[in-house]
Amino acid sequence: MNNPEVSFETTSRTQIKRLPQRGDYDRETVYQILDEGLICQVGFVSEGQPFVIPTAYGRIDDRLYIHGSPASRMLRTLQKGIEVCVTVTLLDGLVLARSAFHHSMNYRSVVIFGTATLVETAEGKLLALEAFTEHIIRDRWSEVRPPTPQELAGTLVLSLPIQEASAKVRTGAPKDDEADYALPVWAGELPLKLVAGNAIADPQLSSDIPLPDYVQNYSRSCT
Amino acid sequence: MNNPEVSFETTSRTQIKRLPQRGDYDRETVYQILDEGLICQVGFVSEGQPFVIPTAYGRIDDRLYIHGSPASRMLRTLQKGIEVCVTVTLLDGLVLARSAFHHSMNYRSVVIFGTATLVETAEGKLLALEAFTEHIIRDRWSEVRPPTPQELAGTLVLSLPIQEASAKVRTGAPKDDEADYALPVWAGELPLKLVAGNAIADPQLSSDIPLPDYVQNYSRSCT
Repeated sequence: MNNPEVSFETTSRTQIKRLPQRGDYDRETVYQILDEGLICQVGFVSEGQPFVIPTAYGRIDDRLYIHGSPASRMLRTLQKGIEVCVTVTLLDGLVLARSAFHHSMNYRSVVIFGTATLVETAEGKLLALEAFTEHIIRDRWSEVRPPTPQELAGTLVLSLPIQEASAKVRTGAPKDDEADYALPVWAGELPLKLVAGNAIADPQLSSDIPLPDYVQNYSRSCT
Repeated sequence: MNNPEVSFETTSRTQIKRLPQRGDYDRETVYQILDEGLICQVGFVSEGQPFVIPTAYGRIDDRLYIHGSPASRMLRTLQKGIEVCVTVTLLDGLVLARSAFHHSMNYRSVVIFGTATLVETAEGKLLALEAFTEHIIRDRWSEVRPPTPQELAGTLVLSLPIQEASAKVRTGAPKDDEADYALPVWAGELPLKLVAGNAIADPQLSSDIPLPDYVQNYSRSCT
């Protein structure tokens, strides 16, 4: 029987139909992908029309947080309490097969279905924004000037339960048709990774402020 | 007056409402972002429910191509000729401000609205799949075993006109509140880039097949 603390129950929406062997309903897998990603894609319907908006996010336990200005179409629409579909996709590499047909990509992705709700209290918003900032770059929150009451009031924060969720993962070498293995074509994986370059100080930064370790040694992989 | 060869006409759907100064309706900008990205997010509505599915894509002139198995929910739904919203997002860096509130990201994103149609002919499919493969890794198509008639028949290819489209771009340093510039907090940009690692040969690859230059020197930036 399914233990909800360990894995998500599959529903008609989260059931992986195409290549079901790539599906993964473990909470740990879903959380790891969410924690490594930086951008989610929020899909919603407004007047029958699908919209997909990329945005940053944070996670606290089994809730995903997004935020924005009350002027944004996404936030204005979502606060009405409509269904959303949120995806996070990490691209891990190209899979180069001997046939065009079997080319693929290695990736880890998460899909979450649910209804987001407004975080109403200033305290709740502040916790979400802290998770949000720490998700993007750990150790940053305690250094920066915290939000003022006016800034908090001018920020909408939405919370989505991570309840109806699934991951899909492909790893490893290409899978070619048996006859194609004899072809003189290079085949294998080309790993891809999001890598940080050298930090660029704000032109107005005073030269006596050192680059923090957490910026210098920034790495996105959570493993 | 708007010249459609140079820039897209804005519609109520593509009009950038939040931070309109970041909006860009130039074809050249939109195409460059599409050509650099590897994954698009396809949003659509099925029985009132939003779905967002990450998938690879290719471009020929003013059309975007996606493909997949007839078994996929996305392809089965889209071939009915419904509205889609396709986004491509390139993350270029973190923007670290002195206040939590002004943290941001540098990014380039594209949104396309429209209706995808099935590519019906084998010839049309083949051209799309070539564009598709060459989009992911240039110079690959001429080396690999081309699709058989059976493979072509078993692949659905959808074509979306790049007509109602817009880009949104943020670059550069953080923008802090005037009073915050005096704070002793490091501020600036941390560039992020998708970088290729060392290629991993298929365990079944014959050792006399050399690594092609286009794999060894793979770079995603189109500039």
